[in-house]
Amino acid sequence: MVPEQKSRGARLVVGLISGTSMDGIDAALVRISGPAARPRVRLLAFETLAYSAAVRQTVLRIATGDVATAGQISQLNFLLGELFGEAVLRVCRKARVSPSRLAAIGSHGQTIYHQGVPTREGGRKITSTLQIAEPSVIAERTGAPVVADFRTADMAAGGQGAPLVPMVDYLLLRDARKGTVALNIGGIANFTVIPAGAKPEQVFGFDTGPGNMIIDGLVRHFTKGKKTYDAGGKWAAKGKVIDPLLEVMLRLPFFTRRPPKSAGREQFGQQFIQQFFLDHQDDAASPLKRPLTRPAPAGENAGGGPPSPQGRGLEIKKGGRARPEDLLRTATELTARTIADALRRFVLADIPMHRLIISGGGAHNGLLVARLAELLPSLRVHHSDEFGIDVDAKEAIAFALLADRTMHGLPGNLPSVTGARRPVVLGKISRP
Amino acid sequence: MVPEQKSRGARLVVGLISGTSMDGIDAALVRISGPAARPRVRLLAFETLAYSAAVRQTVLRIATGDVATAGQISQLNFLLGELFGEAVLRVCRKARVSPSRLAAIGSHGQTIYHQGVPTREGGRKITSTLQIAEPSVIAERTGAPVVADFRTADMAAGGQGAPLVPMVDYLLLRDARKGTVALNIGGIANFTVIPAGAKPEQVFGFDTGPGNMIIDGLVRHFTKGKKTYDAGGKWAAKGKVIDPLLEVMLRLPFFTRRPPKSAGREQFGQQFIQQFFLDHQDDAASPLKRPLTRPAPAGENAGGGPPSPQGRGLEIKKGGRARPEDLLRTATELTARTIADALRRFVLADIPMHRLIISGGGAHNGLLVARLAELLPSLRVHHSDEFGIDVDAKEAIAFALLADRTMHGLPGNLPSVTGARRPVVLGKISRP
Repeated sequence: MVPEQKSRGARLVVGLISGTSMDGIDAALVRISGPAARPRVRLLAFETLAYSAAVRQTVLRIATGDVATAGQISQLNFLLGELFGEAVLRVCRKARVSPSRLAAIGSHGQTIYHQGVPTREGGRKITSTLQIAEPSVIAERTGAPVVADFRTADMAAGGQGAPLVPMVDYLLLRDARKGTVALNIGGIANFTVIPAGAKPEQVFGFDTGPGNMIIDGLVRHFTKGKKTYDAGGKWAAKGKVIDPLLEVMLRLPFFTRRPPKSAGREQFGQQFIQQFFLDHQDDAASPLKRPLTRPAPAGENAGGGPPSPQGRGLEIKKGGRARPEDLLRTATELTARTIADALRRFVLADIPMHRLIISGGGAHNGLLVARLAELLPSLRVHHSDEFGIDVDAKEAIAFALLADRTMHGLPGNLPSVTGARRPVVLGKISRP
Repeated sequence: MVPEQKSRGARLVVGLISGTSMDGIDAALVRISGPAARPRVRLLAFETLAYSAAVRQTVLRIATGDVATAGQISQLNFLLGELFGEAVLRVCRKARVSPSRLAAIGSHGQTIYHQGVPTREGGRKITSTLQIAEPSVIAERTGAPVVADFRTADMAAGGQGAPLVPMVDYLLLRDARKGTVALNIGGIANFTVIPAGAKPEQVFGFDTGPGNMIIDGLVRHFTKGKKTYDAGGKWAAKGKVIDPLLEVMLRLPFFTRRPPKSAGREQFGQQFIQQFFLDHQDDAASPLKRPLTRPAPAGENAGGGPPSPQGRGLEIKKGGRARPEDLLRTATELTARTIADALRRFVLADIPMHRLIISGGGAHNGLLVARLAELLPSLRVHHSDEFGIDVDAKEAIAFALLADRTMHGLPGNLPSVTGARRPVVLGKISRP
């Protein structure tokens, strides 16, 4: 499935992505060496180019389903192409590398639509995905070949078009004797399971639930937007877990459901934070204290929103208000517990695992990492930096590596992860 | 600019396009042989796959500026990908060629937006173009590499992204000793001028005005949509030119303006037909008989619509109605005269030309072709079929040839025609 290839010379590649937070463009300049099936990668520079407020607003508006003309989307596609091109020039300048020396640029682009479940269009079942940031513009501004539109080929082959990072985890982190869990703690937490000596088709992965999404949302709330995350987990470390609240949340169907499963803002975003955490601040309105008025939802999001703790007869502190540090501690514990539970239930019981390699913003949260280590005593815990993968740059690095595969005509998806019928070469190549 | 290359083996390529009429997908299967700079091409099969009424309606709606969600455009992109893929399978079946034997597919896609003149977006001057019909889907359904998005790279390099067919005219029709005009009579008429022994940078071209657009519009009107064109020009041949009307139209600024210039439905579409032709049918309302009520527009389309003949004091037949055949004859004469005038004024006066090679639907209009031959006695008139280019399949053939160039890493635009800063490799490659 991943053809072995002869050793290749070192090549410089830039990976680009603007994620679901839509706040700007991550650019990673890497040096890739070794055979394509077992590449070595070194990060030379990493930069984030923030979107202006106006651009972010337009992207958010279109990505959340507001209508626009084809012209507005077309012009935005070319404008983002200019910005992605600038991000390349900037990361190259930082490393004092001429962009003309780049073997390739891998641009994920900006997702403005993703529909992995078929809907009926023109009498056919259609799934689709739409990433923008015109690759022809990036190629023209940088003089380097650009690989972009990574998700379409997997979807054309019947896959969900996501996740794509597990292939990179497999390429960089697999081990002949050690079972490896590559855990990424972004807004959502997800992991890739790579059994010892695994073939690509034995790799799998899924979302475990919230990563930093709830913690960050609470910090933004309590600081009125002045802070956006709990640095090092220090705020939460001052608090105590509110056990009844934690127990209610742990019983939500999403966490106990068998994989594959994926999560997003629709499950663990603002509505969830309000309902489970912030309503406690207004004691009288606390859903934990209200009597049962309707049955609990039958399934995950059956009613369109997150399951409600309403009527479970729980109380936190009679007549009191939950302290911010206690809510943060509880949110952090929820992330740690749901990751650990998912691993124990769906992975460790069947497959020997030896190490947990953590990346994403959550890797900076000392409390969260410490709790994971305590909850998973059989696994040795690492930061991905130890394996040459900067915890913040990981996704951008991943698209550099996927571009490198495409330039060599190698498939980039893992059908066992995306559900595609077969491994396919990802992306389209634009030559400068 | 067009690097000479060694002779190459013959390769099978399919070209795909759905044009501005948006009624379906033209697919041409060709055999290309010879060196890339001087290819020979043979048409093996040609097919048109009509859009369903619902699909056409959706495409038309979005392309004419109606708002849609990113999701609707994304799903339409994948749906059209399925249809374009089917067009490939169908044209291959017709020629009994397995799609796996295709060296490439060149898909122009369906244009839903094109903005060659910059507008200001996010503080930058942005031009853009948007063609849909997902290439990853075409590649997956056919098993062949797909080149698509031909216009973006030229625009990224500062060009208008159009026209692209002149490169193909240059490749297939240039001659060391004969100056050649390649004339395409579609809805709009345009030509490529290729001086004897020309280098690519000596090639130019422009739109001359209406091709079949007015004739077809009148036929649709008089037959209430039962017919869509004047087969062979036979209906018009029964009529007489209405000289006063012809003279008014010939004085319109578009026709006398120096090139470069481009025309479209906004100039010679339904509004033009109504104002110059059909209002005569309702005698009392004829603009040709009304007194001068306002000054004639200062410039082309200055007032948003086509220039009006109003108040020029012309009459066709006192108290009578213009006959359909006379209006058709006049429309046909307008097309012939404006093509011939443009050639005489802007080409023949300066550059020796020897032959006129006609393609497009208008090549089937015997009256129109005969009039062109009479008006341009110094040029020998040919159909493009004589040069192996089926008059109806020409655009689809063109995108097969442009894809072949991209697969060989060769530029596909002519900067002298599009205005780009340099020749660039067109399109993006998707591998199956």
